[in-house]
Amino acid sequence: MTTGCLYGLGVGPGDPELITVKALRYLRAAPVVAYYVGVGKTGNALASVEAHLSPAQLRLPLLYPVTGKKPPPPFDYEGVMQAFYDDAATQVAAHLDAGQDVAVLCEGDPFFYGSFMYLYDRLGARFATEVVPGVCSVVASAAVLRTPLVYRDQRLQVLAGTLPEPTLTERLVEVEAAAIMKLGSNFEKVRRVIVKLGLEDRARYVERATMSGERTVPLAEVDPEQVPYFSMILIPGERWQP
Amino acid sequence: MTTGCLYGLGVGPGDPELITVKALRYLRAAPVVAYYVGVGKTGNALASVEAHLSPAQLRLPLLYPVTGKKPPPPFDYEGVMQAFYDDAATQVAAHLDAGQDVAVLCEGDPFFYGSFMYLYDRLGARFATEVVPGVCSVVASAAVLRTPLVYRDQRLQVLAGTLPEPTLTERLVEVEAAAIMKLGSNFEKVRRVIVKLGLEDRARYVERATMSGERTVPLAEVDPEQVPYFSMILIPGERWQP
Repeated sequence: MTTGCLYGLGVGPGDPELITVKALRYLRAAPVVAYYVGVGKTGNALASVEAHLSPAQLRLPLLYPVTGKKPPPPFDYEGVMQAFYDDAATQVAAHLDAGQDVAVLCEGDPFFYGSFMYLYDRLGARFATEVVPGVCSVVASAAVLRTPLVYRDQRLQVLAGTLPEPTLTERLVEVEAAAIMKLGSNFEKVRRVIVKLGLEDRARYVERATMSGERTVPLAEVDPEQVPYFSMILIPGERWQP
Repeated sequence: MTTGCLYGLGVGPGDPELITVKALRYLRAAPVVAYYVGVGKTGNALASVEAHLSPAQLRLPLLYPVTGKKPPPPFDYEGVMQAFYDDAATQVAAHLDAGQDVAVLCEGDPFFYGSFMYLYDRLGARFATEVVPGVCSVVASAAVLRTPLVYRDQRLQVLAGTLPEPTLTERLVEVEAAAIMKLGSNFEKVRRVIVKLGLEDRARYVERATMSGERTVPLAEVDPEQVPYFSMILIPGERWQP
């Protein structure tokens, strides 16, 4: 029997219309639709595409064992996550082995900080695989903030807010353009670095860009206790005027 | 009379199916479709979407005065480009003033190194504007090369191949992940930097990702004389194994 094909489908940043025509075509044709989701949640990726699915398509939720803040040791976070991704790969592989194509929903783009990568690394060599790129949150945030992001030969850095303060500081000294993701509980630290470097007039903040609940707030007015995971700070490149 | 709306539509990296549902909807509704193009060329952006257009939609080509290698002084490149963008903005504004919406086709994403930014900077404050983000060439290249691009808290740097050799070298020392765009006649220099830093085993090269004529070649085998503008080198982040 022919095994199924593994599809990594970028579904875009949240707005259901920001999926590509190609991802939508594959999505509609897939007998099994897998998606990562926190326990007790719907999952943003599923919410983005739910309207496009038919009841006949099997939903395969891959339930994250941990969501939000990482529990401190002795909780073995790395071990728990490894077991989770192993198990997710086993579940997906069972359908592929049974000859069913599996579409994995990927918020933004599959290969851009996506959990799909851990499935791909486990299954990509065993099964036919097709990856459909998607609109990533960085450019979606720039569109929502109505700010050109990078001009000409400016360097764009994409950084994680989880980095230690000295590392963030070092990377943002002499910044040309940057996108800082994964804010959540790291927001206060990131803002401190931005203020310290005198970048607060250039930095722009957005929550849930293109999703329902989208919100832009001046950086100084953001409540650090209320910053969601889906938020971003952009430092756009200085306008180049030809 | 109500003026028209300026739409910056990311049409994606080249594959006509990698346009978003939203951009396609706006595109089909626009009475005027503007696009940048070199003299005597069709333009990649137009080629991507031609199939979606009707004969009733006005095509408004914005003809680049210079394509390919920048002529040396005394040719006033900056002055010529400024006059070109001023004129392009005037042409687009004439339709907007006449109450017609204008959709500007943007390869990849409008605010990610896109020429649309120069129209936006001239017209964004005068006219209603909507920017639809698109799939950028960086993630499209990762999909074509079948390589996860960035894991977890790795830094992604997007760099222009036009940068001077010492600058490129400095930015690629201790690189975590990088995408190097705008190769063309800069390829040889970029490859020299990569080899010097011992990164040749990690670097991946692709031409015209998702366009017709797409080609992947091992870095060592690329002919520097034949490198098109639409080409990219990716240095993917080291695999993180949870």
